[in-house]
Amino acid sequence: MLTLAGFDTGRIRNKKVLLKDFVSGTLEETDMLVETSSVKLKLPEDSNGVLVKNIYLSCDPYMRGRMSKPLFRSYIDSFQPGSLMSGFGVSKVIDSRHDNFREGDLVWGIIGWEEYSVISSPESLFKIEHTDLPLSYYTGILGMPGLTAYAGFYEICAPKKGEKVFVSSASGAVGQLVGQFAKLMGCYVVGSAGSRDKVDLLKSKFGFDDAFNYKTEFYLNGTLKRYFPEGIDIYFDNVGGKMLDAALRNMKTHGRIAVCGMISQYNREEPEGLNHLMNLVTKQVRMEGFLVNDHYHLYPKFLEMMIPLIREGKIVYVEDIIEGIQYAPSALAGLFHGINVGKQVVKVQRTKLYDSYAYEYESLYT
Amino acid sequence: MLTLAGFDTGRIRNKKVLLKDFVSGTLEETDMLVETSSVKLKLPEDSNGVLVKNIYLSCDPYMRGRMSKPLFRSYIDSFQPGSLMSGFGVSKVIDSRHDNFREGDLVWGIIGWEEYSVISSPESLFKIEHTDLPLSYYTGILGMPGLTAYAGFYEICAPKKGEKVFVSSASGAVGQLVGQFAKLMGCYVVGSAGSRDKVDLLKSKFGFDDAFNYKTEFYLNGTLKRYFPEGIDIYFDNVGGKMLDAALRNMKTHGRIAVCGMISQYNREEPEGLNHLMNLVTKQVRMEGFLVNDHYHLYPKFLEMMIPLIREGKIVYVEDIIEGIQYAPSALAGLFHGINVGKQVVKVQRTKLYDSYAYEYESLYT
Repeated sequence: MLTLAGFDTGRIRNKKVLLKDFVSGTLEETDMLVETSSVKLKLPEDSNGVLVKNIYLSCDPYMRGRMSKPLFRSYIDSFQPGSLMSGFGVSKVIDSRHDNFREGDLVWGIIGWEEYSVISSPESLFKIEHTDLPLSYYTGILGMPGLTAYAGFYEICAPKKGEKVFVSSASGAVGQLVGQFAKLMGCYVVGSAGSRDKVDLLKSKFGFDDAFNYKTEFYLNGTLKRYFPEGIDIYFDNVGGKMLDAALRNMKTHGRIAVCGMISQYNREEPEGLNHLMNLVTKQVRMEGFLVNDHYHLYPKFLEMMIPLIREGKIVYVEDIIEGIQYAPSALAGLFHGINVGKQVVKVQRTKLYDSYAYEYESLYT
Repeated sequence: MLTLAGFDTGRIRNKKVLLKDFVSGTLEETDMLVETSSVKLKLPEDSNGVLVKNIYLSCDPYMRGRMSKPLFRSYIDSFQPGSLMSGFGVSKVIDSRHDNFREGDLVWGIIGWEEYSVISSPESLFKIEHTDLPLSYYTGILGMPGLTAYAGFYEICAPKKGEKVFVSSASGAVGQLVGQFAKLMGCYVVGSAGSRDKVDLLKSKFGFDDAFNYKTEFYLNGTLKRYFPEGIDIYFDNVGGKMLDAALRNMKTHGRIAVCGMISQYNREEPEGLNHLMNLVTKQVRMEGFLVNDHYHLYPKFLEMMIPLIREGKIVYVEDIIEGIQYAPSALAGLFHGINVGKQVVKVQRTKLYDSYAYEYESLYT
């Protein structure tokens, strides 16, 4: 198979993002390293995998857990010091020795943080069928964060029309969708975010009924009482820590808390203490942690709902796209400082070199 | 209606337990007061209630919440300083002006902490049909704590055969039943308690697979790892605090925590901090607080299961019965020091004066 005329045996540049060393405390850009190596643009004869060119990399808070010493590891293995990082991304198949994939297929799933990846078990990749929507959406609204919001809200929160919903980190990759799902369901929804701009976005773009900047609030228990004088039916928690503790104090009887993540805790050596768990009993609250991993069987149903909603403009999505894989370390670290507005994506190549809607091989030669 | 020949218009002694003042910190016997007043043994013509003679009073940890200032109040109203306390108990109807009750009926439900109570809304009382079992059982295994264990275990924990179950405060009113339910279900069950005697009881009498004295363990995370090397599927939490935090670290994927109570916290001015909530996410754990109030519709089904199990000796129950209402304050305070072994009950009158199986009026005249 000739992938590129004249380049069948050639090697090409492959920039990679490596973890420098295990991270403790706040993640910084300098905890990662961008290195240039090369890759052969053809799979060996005995491969059963695919070779992909990576188009978008997804920056997700859960990745922080993979950067700590395994002692404190997350639900998945840690990255190794000096080794390639990986994460969700969107890619194009440029060589395939697997029956399910052909050259030219667009896919999303776990890929290396590099320009080209060899995926030895491509069964885990999703083929992208709807290519009229921005391909970057498959790192967000149509990818893992989208399904996370969907499963977390509809399955874990079990929402009912008219219920009062609170979402933290509400302008993030997951939060902005949860708020819009809540509105579609006929709920009252308030979001918290970390800047005035984000708060404006929540109200003007995503249709939240109200929103506040948690950084300018000094007593979150009182803040939540102000926005939810009758209490919270559903809290979709992306942050943990003090906000979760305050939400616990403001839950209504039979309230539900979906714990999606605890970004406020990921950079701490010792997690913050929560003092108001007794509210679980007195208010008969269900608090449930979940991972999207359990819910991939819902992906077809999820897409069926989402594609028309996006096409009709009934659900919108804000992305924060940085261009050039060399900026991936700063984009990932930025998540923990609230730098991103909306879903943080890294476009592997600079825009001028190709257009993601009509992807060309030009960039391969740069 | 002549309740007692010659006493139809007379008044009789009525010892009562009053809350002295709102309690902060550890509950002490001296926070309550026993006072003697009198009661008329006949209801007024215009009453729609019942007059009961109280046989057993139930000492339950939740009562501590009713003894604090309303600012920190529990899910039910606080008692008032200088006023009568109330709680679950077993009583005999000695006068009734309500269609559902007749003189001589045995009932259980919320009564005053006194020798005689006028119940103005007796609809909330349960009539006792099975009188061949100890009447005191209706404060425990066949009353509120029994139904709590039943609903908490079968409904909230959703147990499956072979699962690994941990129960704290395992020799208490609720815990001893949860352990036995778990064994009936074919689970592996370990309990924690606060003395060597209680630990022995768990293993020898209630059939727990293993048990430990939490007071002699200095690192509960390690303790739980020892008893559950593969993790905990179900934690039935009666204590909260450090034990809950350690259990969170030892849960298996898709584990469930039923939060029934947090006795370790009730006497604290500030609740203890929990640091390991992130395990809810990484292990996809459901943690649910519940109150028995939601589950009274299950009571007939519960009785149907329990009565034959008790009669056949397949479920046993240990009670700690103190005699004389004057000891009720020390019995209640004792709960928070782990003085009781099994369900703490107060028999209102001393034994010699009557026999609960063949209750007589003699004691009325003493």
